This record gives sequence, C-alpha cells and structure tokens, in this order.
Amino acid sequence: MTQKITIWTYDWVPDMPRGFVRDLRLRWAAEEAGVPYEVRTVPFEGREANHLERQPFGQVPFLSDGDIEIFESGACLLHLARKSPVLMPRDAAGEAATQQWVIAALNSIEMVTVPWWFLTMSGESENGLTHWLDMRLDKLETVLRKRQWLVGNSFTVADLLMADVLRVEKLRAHGHRPASEAYVKRVTARPAFRKAHAAQIAHFVAEDERRAKAD
Amino acid sequence: MTQKITIWTYDWVPDMPRGFVRDLRLRWAAEEAGVPYEVRTVPFEGREANHLERQPFGQVPFLSDGDIEIFESGACLLHLARKSPVLMPRDAAGEAATQQWVIAALNSIEMVTVPWWFLTMSGESENGLTHWLDMRLDKLETVLRKRQWLVGNSFTVADLLMADVLRVEKLRAHGHRPASEAYVKRVTARPAFRKAHAAQIAHFVAEDERRAKAD
Repeated sequence: MTQKITIWTYDWVPDMPRGFVRDLRLRWAAEEAGVPYEVRTVPFEGREANHLERQPFGQVPFLSDGDIEIFESGACLLHLARKSPVLMPRDAAGEAATQQWVIAALNSIEMVTVPWWFLTMSGESENGLTHWLDMRLDKLETVLRKRQWLVGNSFTVADLLMADVLRVEKLRAHGHRPASEAYVKRVTARPAFRKAHAAQIAHFVAEDERRAKAD
Repeated sequence: MTQKITIWTYDWVPDMPRGFVRDLRLRWAAEEAGVPYEVRTVPFEGREANHLERQPFGQVPFLSDGDIEIFESGACLLHLARKSPVLMPRDAAGEAATQQWVIAALNSIEMVTVPWWFLTMSGESENGLTHWLDMRLDKLETVLRKRQWLVGNSFTVADLLMADVLRVEKLRAHGHRPASEAYVKRVTARPAFRKAHAAQIAHFVAEDERRAKAD
C-alpha cells in the first residue's frame, strides 16, 4: 500500500489566488495517481518569515513523504511521478520526455508567463516581456496543434503542469491560440483536476468561516 | 563503460553570449561525471526555424544519449545526474533534495533573474522585477550563508546549475551578497567548469577562424 503523503499549503489566502495556489498541482497529481494524502497548513500571515526552514523562499507548497521533505511544486511533481505510471511512463525514454516537458513548463513557459503576468499587475498589459511571451506561446501552439498530449499518446504529469501554467485567465485572453486553449480545456476537464480545484477552494472557504465564527 | 553522449549547440554565436550558452551546463556535468561526449552543431542563423523538430523553442542545447533525445538544459542535467553519484546522491532523500534545488534554480531564481536581465537590456537597470529579484536573491543569500553546498556536504548538479544561474555579471554587480558571491567563486573554481568554459569559448573561436578563411 502506498504511504500517505502530506501536502503543505497556507491556512488562508485572499480571494484572487484561490484556485491557483500551487498546492493544487500536488493535490491533482495525488488524485491522478491514487496516492493517499492529507493537507496541512502554515500561516499565510507573515509567510515570508514563518516557514523558511521548510521553504527558504517563504512559499507553498511543500510535501512530506515519510522522512523525505521537498519544496518546489515541480520537484514535488517529479517525486510523485515516480509513484505511478499514470503520471510518468516507466521506460527511460518516456521518463526523459516527461522530465523534459516538466522543465519546459517551468523554465521555457512559466519563466516568461509569470514575470509577464506580474508586470501586468502594475497596470501595463503591454510590457517589456510581451514580445518574448508571444514567441514562446506561439511555439507551444505549434506543438499543441500536432498532438493531444506532450509525451506519447496519453496524459502525464507534464500535461498537468503545462495546463496549470497555461490556464491563467490573463494568458488565455492574450492572443488567439486555439490549440493551446483546447489543450487547457482537455486537461482541466479531468476529474482529478476538478476534485483538486474544488478541494482547494473549499479549504480556504472553511478558514473564512472559522475566522468569521472566531470574530 | 558509459556510452558516449552528444551535446548539441550552435555552430556560432556573437561575442556577448560566449561563455554563457547553456551547452556549457552539459559539458560541465559530463566533465564532472566522466561521461564521454562529443559536441555537434546546428546553425545559429535562422535558429528560430531550423531545428524546431529537435527543440520546439529553437534553442540549444539538446542532448542525444543512444535513442534518447532531450532538450531543456535542466532536464538534460537531471538525466546526466543519474549516471554518476558525483552529480546526485543515490539515496531517495538525496535525489529528492537535488531535484528540489535544481528546480529552485530554474523556477524560483532563474524565473526572476532571466526576465530581469532581459529587461535591463533595454536600458532600465531598475525595472518592474527588481524588488522581486532582490527578495529572491536575499533569501538565497540566507541559505548560502549557512552552507557550502545546496545538498548535504558535497557538490551536486544542483550547485552546478545554481552557480551557472548566479554567475551572470549583471546579477553579481547588483546588490551586495557576499555568501552568494563566494559560492559562485567556489563552484566555478572547479576544474570541470574551467575546462567546459574554455572548450565553449574555443568552439566559437574555431568557427570565427573557419569563416574568416572561407571569406
């Protein structure tokens, strides 16, 4: 029997990031793989100081699996991927391809999308990263026009991560990339995503309610 | 005996990126691990169109290892890391920690440093990412004040990657972070880095000379 893992996230976040806090990636992967898990929390208030021993950048999620503790959602996903062929093929070529697309999501796509999104928050929807963003998203659109999944002929953890990177509303509203949009819809239609998403929303709502009662 | 791998890079690049093209990461890792390798090239001119089948974003490096082909320098490093305990410990906890710091270099540090650097190229050394950059580099400085290496008590591929991310001149000149600076100096003093760096410079100079003769 697979050992239960612990996914650590914040006790509470404001409305805006709800549904996008990266513990969702880990909940989703655990749901896909059938790995039992519990969710535990660290305080959101003072987050830049209060769990630096566990996560040196003051972020979430992090994961405990027996004696092993891991931060960085991408690294947690690669760790979980080794627990189930649903997340990553077992052969060397399939593993290499999955790892490659996981890193591409983190370092070729998210390295541009997250800073671009961050700059748009200060009001400029066109900024110094927009051209670079368009080049990267266009290249990915070309890839996604030719295939349903990034690795072979089925879902892997690379799709989980890439779809999570691409599903941000501002990105989907930026430009017209029908293959990417269809891909995001296809991947996020999976029951495991819907369950993980609903559970994250419920987690933060429960804390709202607890706080309202305590007031 | 370990099978020879092929590291693919450009035939030529302008002066500025020389010494920083990411094939250096793979040469360095192969040197550390004693993995035999050859270097082969794709044309730099027209790079955004001419090798998209191999690297969908038109970048280098990519790697061939028998039948396995991988792009994304981070994914190539994780692949090479499994070939030698010099690059990654063999136990599950050591592997998880190495993977975690490899992803941190790519997604917590480089996700800010590269776009920040990119924005400085258009003239503004202060830009919308500077505050975020400072927060991340300060957190990393705190980590590096307490230890020589990111994982356990010895060098791993996580140090190779993190030092490569941090050794960019503009970053080192930005702010005062003595532990990070000492770390970069310590990691890049390794003979394998010096050999890989010299080999990359020589590779591009050889092409300069070939072109000069052909004129």
